Amino acid sequence: MKTSLTRKTRSLPLKRTTGPWGPEKRLEFIDFRLQWDGRLNRGDLMTHFGISVPQASTDIGRYSEIAPNNIIYDRSERVYVASADFSAAFASSSVDCFLNELLGTSTGTLAPESSYLGWLPSIALASAPVRAVSPSVWMAFLRAMRQGTSINVLYQSMSRPQPRWRELTPHGVGHDGFRWHVRAFCHSRKAFRDFVIARVLEVKPGKNSEVTGESDVAWSKTVNLVLEPSRGLSESRRRVIELDYGMLHGEVAFECRHAMLYYVLQQLGLNRDGVLRPEVQQISLKNADEVKSIMDGLAINYD
Amino acid sequence: MKTSLTRKTRSLPLKRTTGPWGPEKRLEFIDFRLQWDGRLNRGDLMTHFGISVPQASTDIGRYSEIAPNNIIYDRSERVYVASADFSAAFASSSVDCFLNELLGTSTGTLAPESSYLGWLPSIALASAPVRAVSPSVWMAFLRAMRQGTSINVLYQSMSRPQPRWRELTPHGVGHDGFRWHVRAFCHSRKAFRDFVIARVLEVKPGKNSEVTGESDVAWSKTVNLVLEPSRGLSESRRRVIELDYGMLHGEVAFECRHAMLYYVLQQLGLNRDGVLRPEVQQISLKNADEVKSIMDGLAINYD
Repeated sequence: MKTSLTRKTRSLPLKRTTGPWGPEKRLEFIDFRLQWDGRLNRGDLMTHFGISVPQASTDIGRYSEIAPNNIIYDRSERVYVASADFSAAFASSSVDCFLNELLGTSTGTLAPESSYLGWLPSIALASAPVRAVSPSVWMAFLRAMRQGTSINVLYQSMSRPQPRWRELTPHGVGHDGFRWHVRAFCHSRKAFRDFVIARVLEVKPGKNSEVTGESDVAWSKTVNLVLEPSRGLSESRRRVIELDYGMLHGEVAFECRHAMLYYVLQQLGLNRDGVLRPEVQQISLKNADEVKSIMDGLAINYD
Repeated sequence: MKTSLTRKTRSLPLKRTTGPWGPEKRLEFIDFRLQWDGRLNRGDLMTHFGISVPQASTDIGRYSEIAPNNIIYDRSERVYVASADFSAAFASSSVDCFLNELLGTSTGTLAPESSYLGWLPSIALASAPVRAVSPSVWMAFLRAMRQGTSINVLYQSMSRPQPRWRELTPHGVGHDGFRWHVRAFCHSRKAFRDFVIARVLEVKPGKNSEVTGESDVAWSKTVNLVLEPSRGLSESRRRVIELDYGMLHGEVAFECRHAMLYYVLQQLGLNRDGVLRPEVQQISLKNADEVKSIMDGLAINYD
């Protein structure tokens, strides 16, 4: 199985094979290390999976059966090396998986022992502080969503000086790239809104609720956002933007829930009023009119 | 062991225990599910880890030994439930871990089978398209960093209309929250710069290089960024900003490599010239002068 990931725009990165931990994982591990480290020995398998010498030998033997042209034993170095015409046998050896694991282990999302990464360079992330979510608040939201009940929250909104109690029926969670919020029906406003979890100061149990996420149209409806390089850019800048966003024929499209439009446009710098120079705002929305009419019909988001 | 995560600002999220997969993982799993789902049966363990009925029973028995006050067998429902005074026994049961796993499985960073998540609500992420990195380009960078060599790249920069060949000695990778770049010594400019991986069109091997990351001062030096709510905000908005960023006594500080300053300030909207209304730019840098003098001494970043 040849992987052909060059010049491809990523929407969702490739995932590892699912299913319980077992021999498949170890074959993936062998493939991954050969692909990225170029070498592997039985000790790597034994340390990573806590298996015995004979088991590691069996696994390498099985790998050689499914991908005989990939692996060579180097007698002088006493190590298995990737052949010159190595071609990854598993999707988990893709560059997307590598970079995702790198990001995941750096941020702590991914435990080091669930990662296949071998040798690593120095890594730096641009990350700003985010307030941790209170366990009791998150637990209360989770329970309400699971059980289909409402919940009473003391919420500090942007618009009112004092925090106020509100009854919410939550049905989903959103991440704006920075903060977590809960998508909920607000019983006082009779509308679905977003509530930043960190702005909830106290919680009290609610009652059984008739409201479900199915009636949240902005959550279930999606729109296709079409990005293009801004007009007026020089040829080289235009080319860079096309490379950065993986545009084909000068555009790239992706799907977005109406309820997430505000955050996505903000991330892309597309929510600003006024006209910025193309050197500053390098991408534009090709279907800006369509998107604007959807935005006009939406309630404000974070409260 | 009590977890006390409330009102804490997160820098690096808690990680799972390290070491090879084994019985410890299964105890963590039991703790996690009791914490967040409130219940667990042997079948959950068997499905997740591919273990036998007796093994699952043994694991639950061991968990009961280390945390006897956490777990109760509900005879009528035939399920293990969390006690009323349940208190997580493992750091992996923290809300940070939960949310990281949620984010990780949604983006594909984390394979579903390495996650402990049980019941889940509907999830939405604000994510824009990013061009996938070419495997051969990434492989060439990785190899050069591991072996301490330079690499020749055909690079499409923002500033020049035509792509140009350059010799680089890379030593680290950075993620600006959106794109991956390589930190490298540029042999034609005799300086360390950032190179967006997706803007590399071709690669050719280089030669042994004397340059190492140790001479990259902007990469190794850090500065403490101190954030505060912008002046002129109303009391309620100020309070919200303090909640959102986990500020204590009206400020929060975090460390940032000089080489990552540009991206972090951009993410926080702190790199703009001119004055925006505090309602638009809600946070400010308390040590803006110090940061500005560092920025003035840095080369431009992405080329």
